Amino acid sequence: MDGKVLVIRKKNRRQHPWVFSNEIKKIEGKPKKGDSVLVYEHDNFIGSGLYNPNSLITIRIYSKIEQDLDKNFFVERITKALDVRKASFPNEQDFRLVFGESDGVPGLVLDKYQKSFALQTYTAGMDMRQNLIVEAMRDVMTVACVIEKNDFRMRDIEKLERREGVIYGTPERVIISENGTKYYVNIQEGQKTGFYYDQRITRNKVRLLSKNKNILDVFCYTGGFALNSGLGEAKSVLGIDASETAIKLSEENAGLNKLENLCKFQTADAFVFLREMFREHRRFDLIVLDPPPFFKTQKEKKRGLRGYKDINLQAMKLLTEGGILVSCTCSHYFFWQDLLDVLSQAAQDIGRSFKIIDRTTQGPDHPVLLNMPESEYLRCFFLEVY
Amino acid sequence: MDGKVLVIRKKNRRQHPWVFSNEIKKIEGKPKKGDSVLVYEHDNFIGSGLYNPNSLITIRIYSKIEQDLDKNFFVERITKALDVRKASFPNEQDFRLVFGESDGVPGLVLDKYQKSFALQTYTAGMDMRQNLIVEAMRDVMTVACVIEKNDFRMRDIEKLERREGVIYGTPERVIISENGTKYYVNIQEGQKTGFYYDQRITRNKVRLLSKNKNILDVFCYTGGFALNSGLGEAKSVLGIDASETAIKLSEENAGLNKLENLCKFQTADAFVFLREMFREHRRFDLIVLDPPPFFKTQKEKKRGLRGYKDINLQAMKLLTEGGILVSCTCSHYFFWQDLLDVLSQAAQDIGRSFKIIDRTTQGPDHPVLLNMPESEYLRCFFLEVY
Repeated sequence: MDGKVLVIRKKNRRQHPWVFSNEIKKIEGKPKKGDSVLVYEHDNFIGSGLYNPNSLITIRIYSKIEQDLDKNFFVERITKALDVRKASFPNEQDFRLVFGESDGVPGLVLDKYQKSFALQTYTAGMDMRQNLIVEAMRDVMTVACVIEKNDFRMRDIEKLERREGVIYGTPERVIISENGTKYYVNIQEGQKTGFYYDQRITRNKVRLLSKNKNILDVFCYTGGFALNSGLGEAKSVLGIDASETAIKLSEENAGLNKLENLCKFQTADAFVFLREMFREHRRFDLIVLDPPPFFKTQKEKKRGLRGYKDINLQAMKLLTEGGILVSCTCSHYFFWQDLLDVLSQAAQDIGRSFKIIDRTTQGPDHPVLLNMPESEYLRCFFLEVY
Repeated sequence: MDGKVLVIRKKNRRQHPWVFSNEIKKIEGKPKKGDSVLVYEHDNFIGSGLYNPNSLITIRIYSKIEQDLDKNFFVERITKALDVRKASFPNEQDFRLVFGESDGVPGLVLDKYQKSFALQTYTAGMDMRQNLIVEAMRDVMTVACVIEKNDFRMRDIEKLERREGVIYGTPERVIISENGTKYYVNIQEGQKTGFYYDQRITRNKVRLLSKNKNILDVFCYTGGFALNSGLGEAKSVLGIDASETAIKLSEENAGLNKLENLCKFQTADAFVFLREMFREHRRFDLIVLDPPPFFKTQKEKKRGLRGYKDINLQAMKLLTEGGILVSCTCSHYFFWQDLLDVLSQAAQDIGRSFKIIDRTTQGPDHPVLLNMPESEYLRCFFLEVY
């Protein structure tokens, strides 16, 4: 332990793993960026935290007890995280293994693809300890390779350089499986960590709704919703994405699942494509809208919401009677009520009525902490024309 | 049609089925309480509505076209509502058949118990047409009896007298089934309409989580969660309720499901009982809290929230490590964020951490309309000690 920090926090923040700079009242010792500190409020011990004086989130609590950030710590945390996933998905090998604060490891994300792993760190403390983390991983599991995917915006906020590359082993393209759907994953070339595990539950629900329906998967990336619709015996499936690489991978994934005759993919800009479909009188029984975040900060929110409303409105116009819209957002600041408002306004503008038939969020390999609202970021509503 | 009403509404209320008295600009003709009127905004026809000058909600839109409230209307609406339930529950005979505005019949609730029906009306227009409704029901389905359960608060707001009694046929105690769980239902003697169908989804999810666990069902009423836990192979099940009648019925229902040795029931005040359990070091692996509404209006909200916080806090203290709390509310004005806040504060007060593992709302026989937030009233979070 490299120091002791006294903090004063508002009552409603006492279980939150983040301590903001303005909550810090006194620092004892000389902790440096990335060090471990003991955190106290008055005489009460709160826990052990990661320290970064360069960040507004100056301390991230990683344990309720006094605990060093040594290999034992990582072995213990990774073992627990693995147990949680095995309990949730007894038949799956591929999932997000560690989801930062939600697994008691602030600043570390690990995605498991068979024996290959994508690693992201977004705190100085975890960034410094990447080698230790790989050692701990190898103690817990068979590890063929670990690829660092540290080229993302949150690193800038923590004043960490952006980096990507192999940090252990030899990378290869792997085939993963989620609820029986197979995907090729190329960690090095893929977006983010290579695959989005967070939509596991939503994908499965879409599969169960797809039978005999004409399906449109907008922002399809590597085809997750499209392939699940295919396996759910859809009548027709069309996936679109702006990225040619993603479309190519979707097509390969269709082949991998023997769905190449049913699932079709096409490179297109969603905003333009949906308007074209309307003009051409094309209609769909189920449309999935799973766009990338149109905004990432509160500041950009107002403009971002307009984009969401437009894209939802365009999709709503394409639905058949009784048709279903699955509308998703993946920005923490896009709260449930915001999404409801956007959908409600879009429905009013085109004069269609909907009932809400389901709502989903990220799967159990992305645990949501009751006392860390920021741990929830994925929200989807299922609407049916009614 | 008995008149024409011109209204002006805010943009965000244009698809809402309610027109408030202050939105009415001009009335043509002399519509009386319970009459049908045509509703216009400027030159735009909005729909056909039920009129009640005694209510703040002066008009309730029941159709987007010009349509009389005759027997044909009810036959059409009941047929459609039945189709929706059959599609959602192909193997079930017992469900809420009509849920007011959500089924295009503002002010009418019908619960189906085999061939017996509980009827509630909460608008003057529906109250006047009860005989017509029964006639329409008999055209659509086999109807053994219809029992009016019109002794509830919403009738006062609409200036309707409270009434209960048989309005068609001969009542008898029936056995209903929900996901294979059986219940005796006595419509005449039961709370509300005799059985709460709205927790269908939550009950099933509790069943799937119950295996080998010690279960406590607080406010158990006729034993819904307790019995589902029993069928889910719980290790032990205890249900409590303040009503002796409810406890007696729970015990009979346990026998009906051959669970009398596993599922135990006891009359008790929840607030007192939970504290006793804590003092006696009794702990549970899964606790369901499904309390009656502690408040029904915005005015009573603050005090009501304190009650919810207390009961949730007491329950949280009784959970084993890894234990699960299923916390429900059934007041429209108790929004998702309110429930999250209450749970979060309770968790902080006792210093326990939780993850949110699921959230449920009313089942598909209580459809939620996108443009009528009031149609959603049931909200449950599943929290796991973490």
